[in-house]
Amino acid sequence: MMSDILSNLGTVLERRKSDDPGSSYVATLYAEGMDAILRKIGEEATEVILAAKSGNSDALVHETADLWFHTLVMLATQGLGPGDVLAELEGRFGTSGLKERAERKSTRAAPEDQ
Amino acid sequence: MMSDILSNLGTVLERRKSDDPGSSYVATLYAEGMDAILRKIGEEATEVILAAKSGNSDALVHETADLWFHTLVMLATQGLGPGDVLAELEGRFGTSGLKERAERKSTRAAPEDQ
Amino acid sequence: MMSDILSNLGTVLERRKSDDPGSSYVATLYAEGMDAILRKIGEEATEVILAAKSGNSDALVHETADLWFHTLVMLATQGLGPGDVLAELEGRFGTSGLKERAERKSTRAAPEDQ
Amino acid sequence: MMSDILSNLGTVLERRKSDDPGSSYVATLYAEGMDAILRKIGEEATEVILAAKSGNSDALVHETADLWFHTLVMLATQGLGPGDVLAELEGRFGTSGLKERAERKSTRAAPEDQ
Repeated sequence: MMSDILSNLGTVLERRKSDDPGSSYVATLYAEGMDAILRKIGEEATEVILAAKSGNSDALVHETADLWFHTLVMLATQGLGPGDVLAELEGRFGTSGLKERAERKSTRAAPEDQ
Repeated sequence: MMSDILSNLGTVLERRKSDDPGSSYVATLYAEGMDAILRKIGEEATEVILAAKSGNSDALVHETADLWFHTLVMLATQGLGPGDVLAELEGRFGTSGLKERAERKSTRAAPEDQ
Repeated sequence: MMSDILSNLGTVLERRKSDDPGSSYVATLYAEGMDAILRKIGEEATEVILAAKSGNSDALVHETADLWFHTLVMLATQGLGPGDVLAELEGRFGTSGLKERAERKSTRAAPEDQ
Repeated sequence: MMSDILSNLGTVLERRKSDDPGSSYVATLYAEGMDAILRKIGEEATEVILAAKSGNSDALVHETADLWFHTLVMLATQGLGPGDVLAELEGRFGTSGLKERAERKSTRAAPEDQ
């Protein structure tokens, strides 16, 4: 199930917080701090854009997973996890998927219905 | 469950592909094409970085949801969905969350264990 | 001359700092603050990438100018200007253009000669 | 003079195009191709944002120079140079710096006066 994957990943990322720096890729990122993690997010967003322009589906999925992964690392440093992102998406789209609400940023011209 | 939210969102995004352009935010993005969607991904990645630096947890979750959302719109245009991203993450971390494998890019110095 | 253009632009941006917010695009950006300016830099960097992938030279020059422009607005808010960027480039490449020195970031694998 | 620095840099970047790949940082970037250069632009834009948030002026100038530098490498691969960017800025702001014209993107709400 999708839920298991993200939930497990969130658990793994949480657990890595008590690991020795350098003992894993994630523990190293935690030790390097927020700017290092944000640098990765900037890099991975660029990779996603380049993969999309390349038209390579495998690369696109790979880079999107990398981007999501590093946002989860970032959230973990703030005591947040995948459940928070999903609750936010849930709040916008509704449980049924039928009821979609617009909660676009007020500073943008946003249609009422996403 | 987390699975329902992403799965429903994937279904909604798929359904929007047959909607009239302009009938919804997503239908408008589809009509504008890939570059418009990638522009949003670049914007939202920047928003995530700024929210992280602001230390505002609500903003951070909000912007991360925005970023994930627009990557899902992008994937939908390629016939891909949240399941593909989660399968990729699953392939790296294993169902149990105990078995983590490194599949970092070969061009980067990557520890064997994430 | 190139020097006149950047120098004049620096002067204009400096002068805009005492303008009423809303009296010009730049005065509005100043009033909105650093995050608004950085948001533009993130957007314009994405535009540069998309223009490069499009292969349209006019668009590429246009977007690069937009990116440089917004970095100059950002620098102006910190009391910095185009001369500071050029001095930094000068410090790396030398007046003659013959003497190029590597001052790449220490955290990256960097060849001695750029 | 500012003009000399950018002009010399443009000349150096042009000359590097006939160098052996690997003989310099720039020759390596050329050999790796456009995506590698765009990846650097994405990275450096992120670095600029993080430097701006850090409030460190030296870092801000350093990262801005890095960003400009890599846009010039990108332009060089397309037979373009710093003069093209400056001509574009000139076209917007006028020689005197007194006459500023708005040539903002039509897709954005843009004030007539920058």
